Amino acid sequence: MTEQNIDYFETQYITFCEPPDELVLKSGEKLGPITLAYETYGKLNKDKSNAIMIYHALSGDAHAAGYHKGTKKPGWWINMIGPGKAFDTDKYFVICSNILGSCMGTTGPSSINPKTNQPYGLSFPVVTIEDMVAAQKYLLDHLGIKKLLCGAGGSMGGSQALRWAVEYPDYIHSVISIATNTRHSAQQIALQEVARQAIMSDPDWQEGNYYGKSIPARGLALARMIGHITYMSETSMEEKFGRKLISKERLGYDFSTDFEVESYLKYRGDSFVQRFDANSYLYISKALDYFDLAEDGKLKDAFAPAKAHFLIVSFSSDWLYPSHQSKSMVKALKANDLDVSDIEISSTYGHDAFLVGVEGLSEIIRHFLTRMSKTYAHARK
Amino acid sequence: MTEQNIDYFETQYITFCEPPDELVLKSGEKLGPITLAYETYGKLNKDKSNAIMIYHALSGDAHAAGYHKGTKKPGWWINMIGPGKAFDTDKYFVICSNILGSCMGTTGPSSINPKTNQPYGLSFPVVTIEDMVAAQKYLLDHLGIKKLLCGAGGSMGGSQALRWAVEYPDYIHSVISIATNTRHSAQQIALQEVARQAIMSDPDWQEGNYYGKSIPARGLALARMIGHITYMSETSMEEKFGRKLISKERLGYDFSTDFEVESYLKYRGDSFVQRFDANSYLYISKALDYFDLAEDGKLKDAFAPAKAHFLIVSFSSDWLYPSHQSKSMVKALKANDLDVSDIEISSTYGHDAFLVGVEGLSEIIRHFLTRMSKTYAHARK
Repeated sequence: MTEQNIDYFETQYITFCEPPDELVLKSGEKLGPITLAYETYGKLNKDKSNAIMIYHALSGDAHAAGYHKGTKKPGWWINMIGPGKAFDTDKYFVICSNILGSCMGTTGPSSINPKTNQPYGLSFPVVTIEDMVAAQKYLLDHLGIKKLLCGAGGSMGGSQALRWAVEYPDYIHSVISIATNTRHSAQQIALQEVARQAIMSDPDWQEGNYYGKSIPARGLALARMIGHITYMSETSMEEKFGRKLISKERLGYDFSTDFEVESYLKYRGDSFVQRFDANSYLYISKALDYFDLAEDGKLKDAFAPAKAHFLIVSFSSDWLYPSHQSKSMVKALKANDLDVSDIEISSTYGHDAFLVGVEGLSEIIRHFLTRMSKTYAHARK
Repeated sequence: MTEQNIDYFETQYITFCEPPDELVLKSGEKLGPITLAYETYGKLNKDKSNAIMIYHALSGDAHAAGYHKGTKKPGWWINMIGPGKAFDTDKYFVICSNILGSCMGTTGPSSINPKTNQPYGLSFPVVTIEDMVAAQKYLLDHLGIKKLLCGAGGSMGGSQALRWAVEYPDYIHSVISIATNTRHSAQQIALQEVARQAIMSDPDWQEGNYYGKSIPARGLALARMIGHITYMSETSMEEKFGRKLISKERLGYDFSTDFEVESYLKYRGDSFVQRFDANSYLYISKALDYFDLAEDGKLKDAFAPAKAHFLIVSFSSDWLYPSHQSKSMVKALKANDLDVSDIEISSTYGHDAFLVGVEGLSEIIRHFLTRMSKTYAHARK
């Protein structure tokens, strides 16, 4: 790869909801100003009809595709977004913003509260998927786009896509929801709660007031280790690691690392600590647990405002967001006479399948988007 | 229940391997003296042919059935062991001992090292399933029993039963292995490693030297919380908790407890800390990870020394010890021309199914034991 054919992108920022025009959150609390970090790829066409919004998952960021100058880290969905790829940036204008409450450029608990000139810490209000989506709507307005051709995301990104469909039905033509659900199950809440307890049990957490001091590294690493187990399937872990030992000929008969899988998890935990804020983990995991599209009643009724076309994808070995959850969603969408395509892709990659680019996923998305371009053009006539 | 019809039992103790006759462990290290806590239920018959050894799981103890005087806590398998129950103490003499490395009366890291008059802590050698079984063999000899009618256990108890079958083939007539496998998978190792890291990340752990000081309560509670999630199935958690909130009308919009499932896990974690030693958790989880019946080659060859009759039970919703692991075991046993009965019981209880007494399990065990009594009598003629 030469310098010439690398696409470089820069993260951009917008700030809105300056006091006194703060955003009223779902909790009733107010938040402002809000800065959103975002990136765009491809070109917005003349009639602004080719915009796709990508929503990221728990630990993601605005850097979804391409490269930043001076770094070698590709965007988190580079295998899916780019020229000729599933989200083809030769055809579409792709937008990705960092979610509210995160720590990757968008306002979150590690941001400076302009009222105190100190980091928010736990004084940051609890935000929800609804609030994240409301912030994304400001970005859409800022870009002068009246309607998204598509909103797409996997895992927590899928939750945001679904929320868009019911909150802003006139602003979104189609939704791609991958490996997600409409509400966290008891098992998912339980897993997030253990991760939160791991962080909050770390004495360095200090009720969230650790900025400028020791960070709760052990707790956050533990949280991430738990996460990684849930992102893989039993099969993928077995294929990747089995019972392979690290550099030793035999078991150590002590409590250091024996198995490669242990070493991998520790590495993943420790490297996460370098790039992510523990309080953001707490806030985002809480937003996941609080998300319940049908909190006031039946899922069918929750989807009643939706007008979009839907593509619902799940993966056979995903035990964190099992396929039956997607099937319930499909049923409720169809009960509203909506256009729904759904597929369960056979894969051993577990929940990670949406990130690693399993066979078939690109093709399915490409075809869906081509069809959506046509139906959207037809609808605009 | 009146005082009259309650069966009271007392924990008994034997001590063996007094120096210089210490037990040579699998690691090559030596350990002694070893005290084993055990209980027995029912009567040993004249020809000592009705003895059944029950092996407990990670956090179990010798108190498998009945009650202790002055306490209301029943034995951990009281629904399976007792007069007229699956392990019918009107017919069989049932023995259960606390495993080596535990903290329930048997020698473990919290025991006093007679050489230093201090608790062993991490100076306690790493013990294996093989070592636990070797200690149980001393108990069998002490009781003057030449051969077990059956060795039975679930989860880690099943591992011990399988180890007995290949280590002491002439001392065990039959094996009941429930919800277990012949070696920990990468996913199982990963889950145990996170639990261990939770304990060892707790500053109160102090490299295992916390006796008489603050115990690593937060770390051990976290380890137990992770465990409980893996013992239940997605379905059983959903049925038991769903998204039910504790006492509140609405979400709290803070980081206290919102959902019942969170409260349940915290309660389970905190109550575990009251009864279990954190170092014992480390040692026993390591023994689980180290267990690999086929470490030198093929599983078929590993089972070659076995002579016992086998009953292999798994549960459809057990994702911690999935049924396919039992099926591999059955295949390897049958390849050795052994008598194997196997069943996958349909249940939503997950791994916990072996403890909660799912429908059918008692009947299956009862019938198997009746048949084993006959084949054993026939073999002795």
